[in-house]
Amino acid sequence: MSLIFRPLFEKESSTYTYLLADSITKEAIIIDAVAETQQRDIGLIEELALDLRYIIETHVHADHITSSCPLKQKFTNAKIVLGESNPVACADILIKDGENLEFGNYSIKAMSTPGHTDGCMSYVVGDKVFTGDALLIRSCGRCDFQGGSAEKLFDSISRLFTLPDETYVYPAHDYGGRTVSSIWEEKAFNEMIGGVDKAEFVRRVNAMELSLPAKIHVAVPANQVCGSKIVTD
Amino acid sequence: MSLIFRPLFEKESSTYTYLLADSITKEAIIIDAVAETQQRDIGLIEELALDLRYIIETHVHADHITSSCPLKQKFTNAKIVLGESNPVACADILIKDGENLEFGNYSIKAMSTPGHTDGCMSYVVGDKVFTGDALLIRSCGRCDFQGGSAEKLFDSISRLFTLPDETYVYPAHDYGGRTVSSIWEEKAFNEMIGGVDKAEFVRRVNAMELSLPAKIHVAVPANQVCGSKIVTD
Repeated sequence: MSLIFRPLFEKESSTYTYLLADSITKEAIIIDAVAETQQRDIGLIEELALDLRYIIETHVHADHITSSCPLKQKFTNAKIVLGESNPVACADILIKDGENLEFGNYSIKAMSTPGHTDGCMSYVVGDKVFTGDALLIRSCGRCDFQGGSAEKLFDSISRLFTLPDETYVYPAHDYGGRTVSSIWEEKAFNEMIGGVDKAEFVRRVNAMELSLPAKIHVAVPANQVCGSKIVTD
Repeated sequence: MSLIFRPLFEKESSTYTYLLADSITKEAIIIDAVAETQQRDIGLIEELALDLRYIIETHVHADHITSSCPLKQKFTNAKIVLGESNPVACADILIKDGENLEFGNYSIKAMSTPGHTDGCMSYVVGDKVFTGDALLIRSCGRCDFQGGSAEKLFDSISRLFTLPDETYVYPAHDYGGRTVSSIWEEKAFNEMIGGVDKAEFVRRVNAMELSLPAKIHVAVPANQVCGSKIVTD
């Protein structure tokens, strides 16, 4: 038994998609799949002869459109999974904190990590945590829309920091070409939260000077229907 | 004992840099480091408190400039390593096929895999092979400059295909956001060499319609001095 694990990258939005599968049973999950790269992902799932069971989103993204619906149409055993706080009718499973989903001999456990959006989930598989936009490498998600809250994000990252130090951290994005970190590294070197208290973290997050994501007015409505249609103005 | 393994990506040239280290002794190697991302790489090596021993190039690149020399200036224990067929005076070690270099309790073994350039090396560390531009994911390197030869590349990839099927394949580039493959997958699905004979492979490689890399006239001279100075027209 071994875990098939494939990080995949979408350059335009610097998004990581993660494909995981049990090498024996072929049952698979995909986390944060992106519309632009759906043909690549479908091709890989077919080549590896995987049985896609769960199409998982860490949150309703504002910077890219998910390929959840197209993937579900292609792989009809698959269910779309989002955190319970997301008002997304297209999800088959609104997962709660602490719940597990099985794929072959592996399981993925949901951890509620709100703050970037109010519905953000992280997911743990063995020694890996998929942190979405809650904890990024040396950084963290912004908190200025979709129910974002720097106070909640501090608590969420503090909770992620209770995972074993050796846990590998796989974020939804990295803009500098880094692919993985670890909990101990982020405790030590994260430029937003490393070694600071909640008040200072909140001050730093609220001082971020960011323009809105270019695609937000398209991406959020589209992702609220799991990418089943592209909403345009 | 465990292996620290960090794939790193440079977006402009879609180049992968690989940092590997023994987690106990901290001795480290870096493969195909890029000028644009040298500050990121230096920062990571410093944060992880690594003792960089070898700065390894799979070949003299035509599409980006190496950061070998700046890295060596920063990490003075490190030696620059290139394959023996490269006429590169700045290399400290011109490695031969079959030779090993040690870092902590790990070793990296050189495999001569000419064809993309005449000096191309692949490197094996445990269950991973770093294939440079010889074997790419579902593709292979071009053979139209720097002593390239499709015939030699066929023989080199055939040799890579003698590695165990489960071996992970980490190329120097991927333009589609894939980060890793395996020997069995490339035997089965590689669009250039999968299931074809030498004559057909050579026909396919020679039929590639490619413009020269934008940076070739800067990158090759700069890389022949290990990135110690930027050569401009």
